[in-house]
Parts: sequence; C-alpha cells; structure tokens
Amino acid sequence: MSGERLIYMPLGGAGEIGMNAYVYGYGPPDRERLLVVDLGVTFGDMDGTPGIDLILPDVAWLEARRDRIEGIVVTHAHEDHVGALGLVWDRLRAPIYARKFTAAIARLKLDERGGAPESALRVVEAWPEVLELGPFRVGFVPISHSIPESAGLVIDTPQGRIVHSGDFKTDPDPVIGEPFVPAVWEEIAKGGVRALVCDSTNVFSPNPGRSEASLVDNIEALLREAKGMVVATTFASNVARLQTLANAAMAAGRSVCLLGRAMRRMVETAIDTGLLTQFPKVVSPEDASQVPRENLLLLVTGSQGERRAASAQLASQGYMGLSLKEGDTFLFSARTIPGNERPVARIMNQLSEKGVDVIDDAGGRYHVSGHANRPDLERFHDLVKPQFLIPMHGEHRHLREHMKLGEAKGLKGIVATNGMMIDLSGNAPKVAEYVETGRTYLDGGVLIGAMDGVIRDRMRMALNGHVVVTLIVDEKDEPLGEPWCEIMGLPHKGRGNSDLVEVLEAELSQFIGRAEKRTLRDDERLEKEMIRIVRQASQAEIGKKPEVTVVVSRLA
Amino acid sequence: MSGERLIYMPLGGAGEIGMNAYVYGYGPPDRERLLVVDLGVTFGDMDGTPGIDLILPDVAWLEARRDRIEGIVVTHAHEDHVGALGLVWDRLRAPIYARKFTAAIARLKLDERGGAPESALRVVEAWPEVLELGPFRVGFVPISHSIPESAGLVIDTPQGRIVHSGDFKTDPDPVIGEPFVPAVWEEIAKGGVRALVCDSTNVFSPNPGRSEASLVDNIEALLREAKGMVVATTFASNVARLQTLANAAMAAGRSVCLLGRAMRRMVETAIDTGLLTQFPKVVSPEDASQVPRENLLLLVTGSQGERRAASAQLASQGYMGLSLKEGDTFLFSARTIPGNERPVARIMNQLSEKGVDVIDDAGGRYHVSGHANRPDLERFHDLVKPQFLIPMHGEHRHLREHMKLGEAKGLKGIVATNGMMIDLSGNAPKVAEYVETGRTYLDGGVLIGAMDGVIRDRMRMALNGHVVVTLIVDEKDEPLGEPWCEIMGLPHKGRGNSDLVEVLEAELSQFIGRAEKRTLRDDERLEKEMIRIVRQASQAEIGKKPEVTVVVSRLA
Repeated sequence: MSGERLIYMPLGGAGEIGMNAYVYGYGPPDRERLLVVDLGVTFGDMDGTPGIDLILPDVAWLEARRDRIEGIVVTHAHEDHVGALGLVWDRLRAPIYARKFTAAIARLKLDERGGAPESALRVVEAWPEVLELGPFRVGFVPISHSIPESAGLVIDTPQGRIVHSGDFKTDPDPVIGEPFVPAVWEEIAKGGVRALVCDSTNVFSPNPGRSEASLVDNIEALLREAKGMVVATTFASNVARLQTLANAAMAAGRSVCLLGRAMRRMVETAIDTGLLTQFPKVVSPEDASQVPRENLLLLVTGSQGERRAASAQLASQGYMGLSLKEGDTFLFSARTIPGNERPVARIMNQLSEKGVDVIDDAGGRYHVSGHANRPDLERFHDLVKPQFLIPMHGEHRHLREHMKLGEAKGLKGIVATNGMMIDLSGNAPKVAEYVETGRTYLDGGVLIGAMDGVIRDRMRMALNGHVVVTLIVDEKDEPLGEPWCEIMGLPHKGRGNSDLVEVLEAELSQFIGRAEKRTLRDDERLEKEMIRIVRQASQAEIGKKPEVTVVVSRLA
Repeated sequence: MSGERLIYMPLGGAGEIGMNAYVYGYGPPDRERLLVVDLGVTFGDMDGTPGIDLILPDVAWLEARRDRIEGIVVTHAHEDHVGALGLVWDRLRAPIYARKFTAAIARLKLDERGGAPESALRVVEAWPEVLELGPFRVGFVPISHSIPESAGLVIDTPQGRIVHSGDFKTDPDPVIGEPFVPAVWEEIAKGGVRALVCDSTNVFSPNPGRSEASLVDNIEALLREAKGMVVATTFASNVARLQTLANAAMAAGRSVCLLGRAMRRMVETAIDTGLLTQFPKVVSPEDASQVPRENLLLLVTGSQGERRAASAQLASQGYMGLSLKEGDTFLFSARTIPGNERPVARIMNQLSEKGVDVIDDAGGRYHVSGHANRPDLERFHDLVKPQFLIPMHGEHRHLREHMKLGEAKGLKGIVATNGMMIDLSGNAPKVAEYVETGRTYLDGGVLIGAMDGVIRDRMRMALNGHVVVTLIVDEKDEPLGEPWCEIMGLPHKGRGNSDLVEVLEAELSQFIGRAEKRTLRDDERLEKEMIRIVRQASQAEIGKKPEVTVVVSRLA
C-alpha cells in the first residue's frame, strides 16, 4: 500500500458559504481514483457579479481527470450542493448517487439544465447499506438538517475511515425526516476515524442549537391569534417547516395555499417520494381568493427578497389575484442570509406601507437554523473522535474558528480552502499541492470564467459609464467628417452646464484636425489618443473617467 | 392667528435611514416662513446606484421658496445630517446655525464641496439660549448620541412648542460630551408640547439601551490581554469611543496611532473645539512601525468595509508601512450597517487568512448603539408628553412601529414620509399636501436627478452588457461596407461556441443587404431594426438581451 495516498480537496465551499464541491482521492499520486461529493451553486449579486444568474465551481481539474472519477455522491438537495449537476454533468459524465428525495430533486436540476440520461442518476439506500465505488465504500448516514434525507457520509478507504458530515444539526426531533442519533455516530466511530470533514457554518453561534419542534407552539399561536390573512415565507426546501406551518394552519382553521413554482414543486416532490404524508390538501390561488382572509395561510417563496418571487410581488402589486392589506400578517420564517438585508428590508417596508404586520426571526421564535452551533460541533467531535479535523462549509473565518475549537480539545487538523489538495495519509494532514481553481458563471445561457473580463467590463460600465466614439477615415487617410460621440450612463451636462457630448466632440475634433498623417494611419494610436482625450475631458467636465470604446471605420 | 398654520415636512430621512432633511413652516398657507433642520447625505451602493458617491435630498422645493427660509439649523455633525450642506448651500443661501463642534465639521463640509462664505455659518450656544428666526424660537438642547454636542431642538412657534429630538439616546454617562438629563426635558415639557418629532432608528430593539461607559472595562481588558498589535475601527465621529479606546490603550501601555484621514481630522477638530482634553499624544504611522507590536493600538477608519479605507488596506497589503500578522487582534467597535455585511465579511476573512483574531460586536461587549431603544423611546414620550407624536429617522417599518408604540400609550400622531406636508395646527395632525420630492446623486463632480435615467442605463449595461453597432451609409443611401459590432461586458462565445460578434454581424449584414431604400434612408427605423436584430440574435446565442447603441454615419 506504500506509494498510495488518500487525498481531500475542496473545489468549492471551503472559504465561502455556497457552491460546495469536494473531492476525495485514493491511489498512487496523480493516479488516484476520485470521489466527488456534491456539486452546488451560489448566487450572483449586483455588487460583484451583475447579470450573473448562478455561480459554480470551475471543474476543469475534474474534467481533465474524468476517467478517474468513480462517482458523484450528493449529500442533500439544497441548491448549494446539487444546483451545478445539470450544468457540469456533461463534462464529467460520472454516475450520480443520492437518496430517493435528493435524487428526485437532482433529476429536476439535470432536466432543467443540459441534463444527463436516466441511467446516470442512481438512488441509494441509507446506512448501513454501503456503495462500492472503486477504492471507496460510501455510506449515507441520515442526519438532521433543514431539508429531508440529508446524509452525512461514511467513506471507507484502504487508509481508514472518513466522516464527511454534510450540512447538519443535532436535532433529536426535526418534525419531518430523520433525527440526529448519537448512538449511530458512536458506532461509526468505534473502529477509529481518520478524518472528520465537518460543517462550520454556525461555529460563531455560542448556544446549543434548538430543535425544529421548538417552533411548533409559537407558530400555532401566531396563526390562531392573527386577525387577517397570514403569509409565511421560508425556503421551499425546508419541508419540515412547511409541515409545521401547515399543521398550525389546520389547527387554526386556515386553508393552505402554495405560491411560487419552487414551493409547489418541492411539496409535490416531497409527497411523491413519501416524505410528506400529513400535508393538507391545498387550495389553488384562484380558490384562495374566495376563502375568508382569517381562514387562509399562504406559503410563499422569496424569503431572501428575490425580486421576482412571490413575496416581493405580494409586497408590491399582488400575486395571482391575491393581495395584502391592513390587518394581514407576514411571517419571515427564515434567516436573512448576509448580503440579502437590503432586498428583504425593501419588502418589509413595502408591507409596512400597506399596513401589514411583519414578523421576522429576530426573537428566534419562528425560525431555527439547520446547522450545528458551536457546542453541537464540539459534541459531534466528541462522538466521532477523529484523528484529524478538517473544517469545511464556511468562509475562511468560520474554518479557522472551527479549527481553533478543535485544537482547544486536542484535535489536529488543517484549514483547507478551495484548491488545496490535502494528503491525509501521514501522521498529520499536509498540503500536497495547490490546484488552480476558480468560479464559473452562468450568464444567460452561457458559462463563462470568472476571470474572463466580461464581468469586470460590466462593473466598469456600471461605475463609470460608457462613451462610444466613431470616426470615419477615407481612402487617403483623411478624416471624413468629425468624430462622433454617444454616451450611455453618463450625465448629459457637465459642471458648467455645458453639454458633455459637445465638449467631448469639440476636443476630439481639435485633436483630429491637428493629427499628423502617421497618426491617422495608425488605428491603435488613434484609439489610444482618443480614449485619453475623452477620459481627460470627462474628468474635467464631470469629475469621472468613463469607459471608452473607439470605432474607426476606414473606407477602402 | 386664524389663517396661519404650522407645518412639518420631511424631505429626507422619513422612510429611510439617511439623508435627513426636515422642514418646519409657520404662516399663511403657501407663505409660511420656513426653518430647515439638517441637510444630510446617504451613500450609494453597487446594488442600486453604481458609481454614485453621495445621495442627497432633492431641494428643488426649498430652492423655489428660498426667500422664505429663515435658517438652516444642524442638530449634529454626522454625515447623514450635515453632509449635503456644501452641495446645496449655494441653491438655498440661508444662514446655517450649529453648536461649536458641529459648526467646525460643517465648515469642513462647506469648504470641501462648493462652500459658503464664513458669514453663512453661525455658532450658537446651547439651551437655555435661544435663537430668534422669524416666527421660530429655536433652542439647542444637549442630548446624548454617538457624537459630541448632539442637540435636540426646542422650536417655539405661535402655535406651540415642537420638540425635534434629533438623533439621541438616553445615556447618563456618555464618556465624552453631555449626558441625557431627564429633568431638562421635564422642564421643557411643562408648558405643553404640541408635537414631538422623534428618532425611530432603534424602535425594534427591545431592551433598554446601554451606556457608553459600560464598554470601558471590556475594552480595557481586551487591550491588556491581547498579545500582538491591536487595531480598532469605529466611526471617526464617535469621539467618545475614540477616547475610551485611547484610555484603554494608555492603561494597557499602548501608544495610539491614528490611520485614515477622517480619523485624524475628527480628532483634531475635537481637540481644537475643546471636546477632547485627555486624548494622548499620538504616534505617526512612521514612528508606529518602530513601536513593539504589543505596545501599539491603531485607531482606523473603514468599519463598514469601505474599499479604500484603512481597515480594508490593512486587511489586504498594509497601510502606510504597517501590516498585520498572526497574533494581532482586530476589533470592530461598531455595528455593521445593514447592507454592508458583505464588504465587512470580506475584510474579516482576509484578516482570518493572515491569522489575525477578529472581534466584532456580536456579543455587545465592545459597542453600544447611539440611538434610543424601544423602552428609552417610551421613557422620552413620557417625559415630553406631546400632544402629537411624529416618528422620523427611520424606514417606513420603523416609523410605523414607533407610531404603534405611541398609540399603545394613547398618543395621537401620523406616519409622515418624505414629501408629506403635515398640518400641525388642528386637533390632529393631517396631511396638507403631497410635495414632489426625490433624490439627487453626486456622480463624480456633477449632481444628477435620481430619475434622469443615467443610473438606469448603467444598471442595464451592468446586467445585460452593451453592444455598439456602427453602419456607414453613403450619399446615395447605400450602405458602405458591412455593419460593425463591438461588444462590452458580454461573452465572446455563444452556446454553439460560435463567435458572438460574427453571428451578430452576419445577421445585421443580411438585414442590410435586404433592406429597402426607404429603410436605409430612415435613421430611426434603421436603428430600431438593428437593435431588434441584435437583441434577438443575442437571446438565441447567449440567452440574454444586451443594451444596444446604434451609430449610423451618413456621408453627406
């Protein structure tokens, strides 16, 4: 076995929260057989990626080694774990393994984007069943999270056992789905665990996590006491929360109506796969408008303020014939993900203008997190007793804090971020290699590299505006007419109330009038000079330097 | 007195947190004499206002009535109350009144942007001194906040007394500056208060606010126990916090070094105006690099993650010869303003990568808010006992919640947002008029209207990219050569790996080749058609519709 090694490498999800993609390998260096865990996405934002729909890990490294991939295993059906499958499967072409509900969601993702044949996606049974994938034996251990059928992975290799926690919390009573069972993990740990690769999301939350079941009474009371219509928004994938909300609605004599495609699809999938057996019959939006307001609960998408989702639309004009008014109640039964505060606040203010009472998760009464808090992580470390701790699923500060937490209890480990290939074979984990990784953007229907310059140009136009200069030069290299300017995203009037375009054109004309023949002959030089002139004149006139595109047309 | 009325109208700050600008008026309708309270700014962001440096209230309404303005009074020196003075003074040309320190900061603002003559800015003494301004008698009552010399205003009019709270908290021990003194407000309330116009910022904070003094021990302990260099960031204007940090540094045997222009300027101004008398002698950045790390405290700008501020630079390469390393400590002694989470997290992660320990205000140990919390507001209502409560300084949800809080105790009032002119003369406040208001953007060196379309165009280019099409048409209305495309902020390759520019040019050439003479003669039609073709072809090729600029050059 000497000469073989066990490696771990995150391609996404380590150094960020989102787009999870982890790789394990076993074999001789550079010939390891590979196991991919999760292929997720993250979302773009105006701040750094305007116009980008989804962001996914760059899988070039995997693609170049796709003959070595034994399989892609998916821990659970959240977008940040499953969302990139459809976008990259064609480049990897390895079989995908997941539990039933997760596989059903993965199938939707595959069909939505590019896709993979039916045979590529294989449903697996939970632990103690195991899957043989080359040198790996993989078990899917039920673990609680904010989506059903979440799995921690037990990965047995010739160099020992790895526990890959997946996203998890230590909930003994998750309402829907499987609880966290300490005895199972104790059993798993018995023969020794070489490495625990572990969720770090909530390492800064000091108190033990609360159970989903702790919300039931609060939500029921809210729905009983509310006078008008109640609207509740949460992640569609939080099937347990949907059940809790629906139970409370039934108890309070309210009919349930689902709004938003993701919401309807998730409930259907959960019913089809046998997870939701107690969900009430829902009313359609059309029928809902006939139901008295005090007998209605709308379950809607858009808890993060997404502009086109049902929440945003209800907060402005209305949605599918339903609209809100004074006396109604709107419940955010979800946490606002950092960065989404502004769009969420926009919705809250619009609701406030309508006289709708907004209730958020500020008091923790209507929402609990799906991730293990700091004491829960310590408890999990204690159960699994790994030789090495490797924090994952976190920004750098989460990973580092998680490592410090482990070290305080005597655990060895390493902070491994995207692209760091870690050799787990020795007495301590060590960096074997730094692999070039990055992000791929889905822009409309096209995948582009994060460093292609496309987004850089968009941001520059957004910050600085865009000036287009056109100039025609005739066969004798003489300018034909004057240079012409068009501006986009720039003030029309400058400081002295002069017209910006006129000022720019005057400056350019002056330059062209004086330009020597050799300049007029030289496209590159013409362009460079005209860009300089436009930027300089703009700086003087409006105090900023725009992006400039110069088009020189030569008559032949 | 019949036929005269007392009015209140926010032009900014009511329906948002930022760019405060309030107007009071007294006199016959449409001939009221006017009093302006505060002229502040808010900050742009990539999300909604890319490239915009500052946002200020549209003062067109005031400008059209500037002969009726008795004065501009400034409650305190925060940017959101004083920042627009320099940008709009020239349009209003009314005298500005402020207390000494506030006036010193206002003078800097005036000099920085446009400016006003020395004589325009007048220093006033605090209550019980009062200022006679037409029908108004205005008193500046010291009140505690997160900046020294903050004032609540007592505005006496022929129709009674108004209390304009300004930004405030009920701190009995603010370290630097004046405490909140209940007896003063009781005295002010004695003769009856017609209206309390009141800060709403922290209405959702359920517990009584804590005193600045409560931080002293925590901060001192932190500075004593830290091993390496300590960096602390807070708002430069939080002079009390700077003093607390400096005191702790002295106690811990650390020299203080100020980094960032705003930080140095604020400390200088506070010393010059006699507010800071105990501040230690600071070391220059050059000398600081000679001081042992464990004997140094850097006080730095950039607590909100501002890209060019000292915090951001220290987190990446370093700043003025100083850089951070493993074992150093970085303290965020400030709240992250909603919307700034992402840039702040970016800095925290960069620091984490360097091995720097980051301490934020999560536990409330190193920061207290400058605004009155919910119970403090109730206490203030009880002291002032107004006939009407009018919430200000808040988003709509804050104003509404504040009004509900007052109503629960039997107060009458109204939620008044920007542009709502409220008549305070009768038995209940009522809307007299809706005035058109808006936002003005400072873009580079030019002021533009929020609705001018400039920012809309920038956002569109950022989301969709920009295609520039040029076409030359000769004297006989025949196309000269082919249409030419340039793209900016768009993928170069389409779905089928074809070149986007080539595809667009081929489509355009085909159209031009077939175009009838009357189309070629008609600029408008040519433009419209070519835009349609580019957008349609782009949608097919890359799945998105770009912005398009068409330049048709006609040889005459």
